[in-house]
Amino acid sequence: MREGLESVRVVLVGTTHPGNIGSAARAMKTMGLRRLVLVDPQRFPSAEATALAAGADDLLTRAQIFSSLEEAIADCVWVVGTSARSRGQSVPLLPPQPAANALLGHVAGGPVALVFGRESSGLSNDELDRCNAFVQIPTDPDFRSLNLAAAVQVMAYACRMAALDEGEEQPIEEGYDPPATQEEMEALFEHYLRVLIQIEFVDAERPRHIMRRLRHLYQRKGMTASEVRILRGILTHTERGGGRRSARP
Amino acid sequence: MREGLESVRVVLVGTTHPGNIGSAARAMKTMGLRRLVLVDPQRFPSAEATALAAGADDLLTRAQIFSSLEEAIADCVWVVGTSARSRGQSVPLLPPQPAANALLGHVAGGPVALVFGRESSGLSNDELDRCNAFVQIPTDPDFRSLNLAAAVQVMAYACRMAALDEGEEQPIEEGYDPPATQEEMEALFEHYLRVLIQIEFVDAERPRHIMRRLRHLYQRKGMTASEVRILRGILTHTERGGGRRSARP
Repeated sequence: MREGLESVRVVLVGTTHPGNIGSAARAMKTMGLRRLVLVDPQRFPSAEATALAAGADDLLTRAQIFSSLEEAIADCVWVVGTSARSRGQSVPLLPPQPAANALLGHVAGGPVALVFGRESSGLSNDELDRCNAFVQIPTDPDFRSLNLAAAVQVMAYACRMAALDEGEEQPIEEGYDPPATQEEMEALFEHYLRVLIQIEFVDAERPRHIMRRLRHLYQRKGMTASEVRILRGILTHTERGGGRRSARP
Repeated sequence: MREGLESVRVVLVGTTHPGNIGSAARAMKTMGLRRLVLVDPQRFPSAEATALAAGADDLLTRAQIFSSLEEAIADCVWVVGTSARSRGQSVPLLPPQPAANALLGHVAGGPVALVFGRESSGLSNDELDRCNAFVQIPTDPDFRSLNLAAAVQVMAYACRMAALDEGEEQPIEEGYDPPATQEEMEALFEHYLRVLIQIEFVDAERPRHIMRRLRHLYQRKGMTASEVRILRGILTHTERGGGRRSARP
């Protein structure tokens, strides 16, 4: 999985506030993205960027700097630009996850880039024209004020999810509690029925409604074998009326 | 769609830095979440929070403050906690999108909550035990330093995507069985504890392990109010030792 994410270049174009560069680096690194590229940053390097990177300052040290987007993405096989507005029908404007899936889908061919524009004015038309696709993060129409680092965080997360979907199955953890078998579930319901009749919660002639409700409740949850054992332990104690009771003369 | 998102409460527990509260409010508002709840914040209100909210300060003004998580979620029908670690197999640890889908899937029944822990230490075991499910944002194993506001941003985004997917509200069916509230669930667990001590299934001094297993089991898929009534009816009959027993001379 790592290989896929390491082919993703995050390109910040014309960033005004160095703090945003630092926060963006931190956002990238939490999701396994490592390649930061800056196009014409207003102030960089900067102590503020380093402070906000909070442990992701290695990304700042290794950041490449270019004077134009054209140079920054010259070797890329797929470029996704962030855009707050539609570019017409000719270039797809995708939600984050499909955009990230498409990006990761192209890494086998070479480097890919995710491009973020200026805080105030986004990407220029010329810059937008260099993108293969656009992503629009679906903000609330009444409050579109998504911070640059927050946008990077959302897209870096989407890239990581795209990479995880492709990667290996998760191994089963130690201490894994296997699911109950149908047989164990049936034995649980029989035990319940016996006890509910004994404590006169259900009528032996008409236990149907309550037993169905219990089945729905427990089957919906998908129980583990050890959970079934706990419930059966409780039922056994209930049958005996508790240790104290049975100890009475 | 708005209605669904407006039922989602974001609960920040024990936040240390007021700036994080402000940034979290901004992250929420960009995605259409409006209900911020603070549990025992270290400093609030605060000029720093207001500054970082950047136009989302109305969420800070309307934020509710409680001294415990228990009170903050008392009327909630579904609670998702953020957790960096696995809680064992009995409660699902979901990726962000499935967790958000489940959260939005419960809004028809009442308020739902997304709970974020302290910056340094997360949520306590007691707080984690009150959650129906857990979400784990899949950070890079080598750099898990996800800022609180960044975590809120990712989850708020996932909630918005879930709400967009659902589109129109589902009408509530006739014969609809409303979900149990947290208060009803707590009453159920208290009742269980009393009975399990009485029947000597648990030691009054050390009921913890079994009670946690039962919490996980019953909170996992959510329960309806009528299911809680059935279990409490069974517990009441168990306490009395059943009709037959009590009819004995």
